[in-house]
Amino acid sequence: MSLTDLAAVIFDTYGTVVDWRGSVIAEAEALARKKGIEGIDWGVFTDAWQASYRPYINEVISGKRPWTTNDVLQRQRLDEIVAEFKIENLSTADRDEFNRAWHRARPWPDSIPGLTRIKAKYPIGSFSNGNFQLLANMARHSKLPWDFIVSSDMFHHYKPDPEIYLGAIELLGGEPARVMLVAAHNYDLANARKHGMKTAFVRRPTMFGPNQNRELSAEDGWDIVTDSIEGVADALGA
Amino acid sequence: MSLTDLAAVIFDTYGTVVDWRGSVIAEAEALARKKGIEGIDWGVFTDAWQASYRPYINEVISGKRPWTTNDVLQRQRLDEIVAEFKIENLSTADRDEFNRAWHRARPWPDSIPGLTRIKAKYPIGSFSNGNFQLLANMARHSKLPWDFIVSSDMFHHYKPDPEIYLGAIELLGGEPARVMLVAAHNYDLANARKHGMKTAFVRRPTMFGPNQNRELSAEDGWDIVTDSIEGVADALGA
Repeated sequence: MSLTDLAAVIFDTYGTVVDWRGSVIAEAEALARKKGIEGIDWGVFTDAWQASYRPYINEVISGKRPWTTNDVLQRQRLDEIVAEFKIENLSTADRDEFNRAWHRARPWPDSIPGLTRIKAKYPIGSFSNGNFQLLANMARHSKLPWDFIVSSDMFHHYKPDPEIYLGAIELLGGEPARVMLVAAHNYDLANARKHGMKTAFVRRPTMFGPNQNRELSAEDGWDIVTDSIEGVADALGA
Repeated sequence: MSLTDLAAVIFDTYGTVVDWRGSVIAEAEALARKKGIEGIDWGVFTDAWQASYRPYINEVISGKRPWTTNDVLQRQRLDEIVAEFKIENLSTADRDEFNRAWHRARPWPDSIPGLTRIKAKYPIGSFSNGNFQLLANMARHSKLPWDFIVSSDMFHHYKPDPEIYLGAIELLGGEPARVMLVAAHNYDLANARKHGMKTAFVRRPTMFGPNQNRELSAEDGWDIVTDSIEGVADALGA
């Protein structure tokens, strides 16, 4: 089956399509100005907030924690980290609103032009550990032109559990070689390939900040290796 | 909770948003010209094809038939009805392509303007007994500006099974009164209301053809009653 005979193209979203780090930092800085919070390095804060993501969802994957959405985990973690950073004047309403910064993550400059080109040739969708409502809100807010969303809470499983990959394949016609995953995370592509999907790596060398030291290169011979969503569009002749 | 404090607005799709009947008839007539098939009333044919929908999915709902997508049921029914109408020169490839007419159903004239207005205020999605891939293809083909799709095959349940309503509510934040269903079918709204959702009825007096004798009026006091998706947008202040 050729690289371009595809039923759909799906996209890891955080890091691959949207700059979650820059977006959350920008909202944090605006909130700090509004509330008169000083002396916090919001890059360090945001990295600490995000760093808890994998350990927390690993507790869900291992069964130590019952099914919990990304949104709820991030909100719980926010309370902990606000205490760790000794930030005192954020009300529950402030924290609820700040947590929704993840719903408003902004696309990288190449994302919407690239997605628009790919969408002209194939149905496109988000494929994310985010939850459905968060991804729907982000689509609307950030004008991501998805035809559909495939989210962890559709299956009550997080990547890299097989259920979310196999679930996406079933919903998209049941032929894994006709579904392409685009991601900036090598582990995600490795799992997609294990289940028979096509793979495209997009290098995002600052998605974890200016000192990023991982995910800087393709760790396997993915079907496409590029630096942008527009590069994926080029490779697909879209 | 007010009518307009909504987490999302979801839309029954066949009949409510797209004119499946006119679209399938147009594709049938084009196919007939191409293949030299004469003497068939394609309106009668299309009505017979669609009429099998509810009995077939009732077999799935009752457990008589295992989970089967709408796409597969319509393709099976196509073979039967082609034989009933004594149409002889349609190959398997012709039939596969003709079955995909349901993926290419065209919106009513008010649908895209109305959806675009509502999307500026709330996330919007398809909520359909169609299957995910069919709805994704339709979104792309007919430029339906969904943020997301909620389909029967996400749950392996057809409307009016509770699982698809409750599943949609869970994915959209868990507050049924903050999810509105827009539909041209009273039974769909009755079930949405039973599960606590907001309801909007759109009168589509020709969705079943020029002699339509059902679904001509609101059969209960739905939250919104109107004649178009733009009418829903008006009622929502969108």
